Amino acid sequence: MTTLCRPAIAVPEHVITLEETLELARTLHAEHQQLALVLRLIENTGVSTRHIVQPIDATLRHPGFEKRNALYEAEAKDRVPEVVRRALEQGEVSPEEIDLLIYVSCTGFMMPSLTAWMINELGFRTDTRQLPIAQLGCAAGGAAINRAHDFCRAYPEANVLIVACEFCSLCYQPTDLGVGSLLSNGLFGDAIAAAVVRGKGGHGVWLERNGSHLVPETEDWISYAVRDTGFHFMLDKRVPGTMEMLAPALRTLADQHRWDVTDLDFYIVHAGGPRILDDLCRFLSLSPETFRFSRATLTERGNIASAVVFDALNRLFEEGAVRAPGTGLIAGFGPGITAEMVLGRWTAASQDQSAAHDAARFAPTGRSADEALGRPVDPPAAAPAR
Amino acid sequence: MTTLCRPAIAVPEHVITLEETLELARTLHAEHQQLALVLRLIENTGVSTRHIVQPIDATLRHPGFEKRNALYEAEAKDRVPEVVRRALEQGEVSPEEIDLLIYVSCTGFMMPSLTAWMINELGFRTDTRQLPIAQLGCAAGGAAINRAHDFCRAYPEANVLIVACEFCSLCYQPTDLGVGSLLSNGLFGDAIAAAVVRGKGGHGVWLERNGSHLVPETEDWISYAVRDTGFHFMLDKRVPGTMEMLAPALRTLADQHRWDVTDLDFYIVHAGGPRILDDLCRFLSLSPETFRFSRATLTERGNIASAVVFDALNRLFEEGAVRAPGTGLIAGFGPGITAEMVLGRWTAASQDQSAAHDAARFAPTGRSADEALGRPVDPPAAAPAR
Repeated sequence: MTTLCRPAIAVPEHVITLEETLELARTLHAEHQQLALVLRLIENTGVSTRHIVQPIDATLRHPGFEKRNALYEAEAKDRVPEVVRRALEQGEVSPEEIDLLIYVSCTGFMMPSLTAWMINELGFRTDTRQLPIAQLGCAAGGAAINRAHDFCRAYPEANVLIVACEFCSLCYQPTDLGVGSLLSNGLFGDAIAAAVVRGKGGHGVWLERNGSHLVPETEDWISYAVRDTGFHFMLDKRVPGTMEMLAPALRTLADQHRWDVTDLDFYIVHAGGPRILDDLCRFLSLSPETFRFSRATLTERGNIASAVVFDALNRLFEEGAVRAPGTGLIAGFGPGITAEMVLGRWTAASQDQSAAHDAARFAPTGRSADEALGRPVDPPAAAPAR
Repeated sequence: MTTLCRPAIAVPEHVITLEETLELARTLHAEHQQLALVLRLIENTGVSTRHIVQPIDATLRHPGFEKRNALYEAEAKDRVPEVVRRALEQGEVSPEEIDLLIYVSCTGFMMPSLTAWMINELGFRTDTRQLPIAQLGCAAGGAAINRAHDFCRAYPEANVLIVACEFCSLCYQPTDLGVGSLLSNGLFGDAIAAAVVRGKGGHGVWLERNGSHLVPETEDWISYAVRDTGFHFMLDKRVPGTMEMLAPALRTLADQHRWDVTDLDFYIVHAGGPRILDDLCRFLSLSPETFRFSRATLTERGNIASAVVFDALNRLFEEGAVRAPGTGLIAGFGPGITAEMVLGRWTAASQDQSAAHDAARFAPTGRSADEALGRPVDPPAAAPAR
């Protein structure tokens, strides 16, 4: 059974509060015809604090796409290793046991992606498969979980490491003055998340069924305009209303699994903004606390793009209130407009179960599984543990 | 058994010959200190013709990253549908039967990626999973095949459509004057490829075992410098010698499968340049005709990045000389430096086998497979065919 283990999260040290954001909007856009609307929209996000990789003065300057992207790379290399280390620890695997590295990020672009650097620097095997995804935006956290789930279905002994690295502040575009852009300037934050997905063993959420849904004809509702100044985030004003179209997709996935989407034990969804959470409550007849984890992420860190679902899931682990084998849903939402959804069960193996599992894991296994993953295979005469 | 079906390929209508390329180099870089070396390197590529999306005059002008990328999008939307139609036809599936869309391209950047547009415009289901990959460069063709293989291992009834869309001419950077850049200007071409991978049925290459290998400490040998003017392709002069490091990885994969890498019935490898093919012959003790498909792609179309392996594979289908169940290897090479490799068997099902297969395919199947893929499930009382 594929298990999504407890995610590790890190946020940068520079903090900007709602009051500071509002004050900046008032100062920078004093003459803006829709300033009152912008201020109201920012206040309504409920985002109290956000963390960013540079002090606010530097964030507001645009040194050009090249320098921005170089900064993205430097910050990622500086900050990712510690988060990876914690995620591996929480997943109880070593770097050498990882078979697939999924790196999702839409706020900087590198080729080769950070996966190559990670293999070179962080102790992963040279035959670790690499899956970098840059074009699924905020839905990429859900997509990463789903592709990891698929991979473990294909190779039941496999381990996957997911890294979501989002420095949204490096996509700030001072010349974008539309209401959607000014709102986004008050909504997005920076964060790094990582999590292990294990084909066998581990503690967390057993992944059972995943699915994807694209809302027809909404391709241009959330998008990047690619310009000489980099990626310009374009947000259509219809986006906050998308849950009316996505709630049925969540319901359908649960129906296919013979689960009732209105009666699960936990819900971890992308906190794109407050209306998304409010509407999901309404359309799925859920109480507001259902989304307390997503809401807390949004309040304390802003919309941290593909990292939201991991941050919210970490809060579920922290609370520890769900009992095994509680049922739940994890869903990322992003451009397309796409939902990447997965149903799973909470597992909280006792120390004993865990020990039994570990014994099983390190017992001699068939050669074929390790071989299919390309892992080094001990010669037949060697000790059974690898 | 997962089958990679015959790929469909298209190249644009504008052609540039080797002579024209050399003449351009002489004219544009008359004062270049290493012109003689550049001309010799370009001649040595063996690239006779390349196809590009615009006439050469327009190709040589750089209108800025924004306009280049807008052109990428327009050309992709214009040219991809016909190639997709042919690939589906050759894979004997309809758009509604595709469960995963893999879109690989490193020569333009869109968010959402073209997968969202394809679902909206080309008849794919709204629950088709989307996997856009922009950061694996020339290795992405091999990676796409491998991720499709994994997906069909996870869901044995699944169908995957791969699209590789590479307009390398839209990454031409007139201010890049290093020898590697001038060589690249004479090496790369534009093309679109698409292919269906089927979990059940289909004719082509049965995929058996895939693997990936990263050559340590070569991250910066093939890379993009991301600048205000777009993606700048950086090619280290050590790249042509990479096969010495990658040939052992090909050998290891074959060994794991109990196959002899020097004695397979077909070889489809990325034709990054002539030295790569020459060296692979040498290191794997193969005769030069072994790589005739890759060589022909390189000669007639240049290095068409992630589309190379599909174009070469199509030539294997065309030749029709391999007999089932001949063994073979497909490998893409790209930044990292990474090899994405897969071993497979040639299948040339007779008409009878094919008919038997089709009957099996459309017979009632268990609900669980369709459900796991999120496909609409007929109510039990309905006709067995879906």
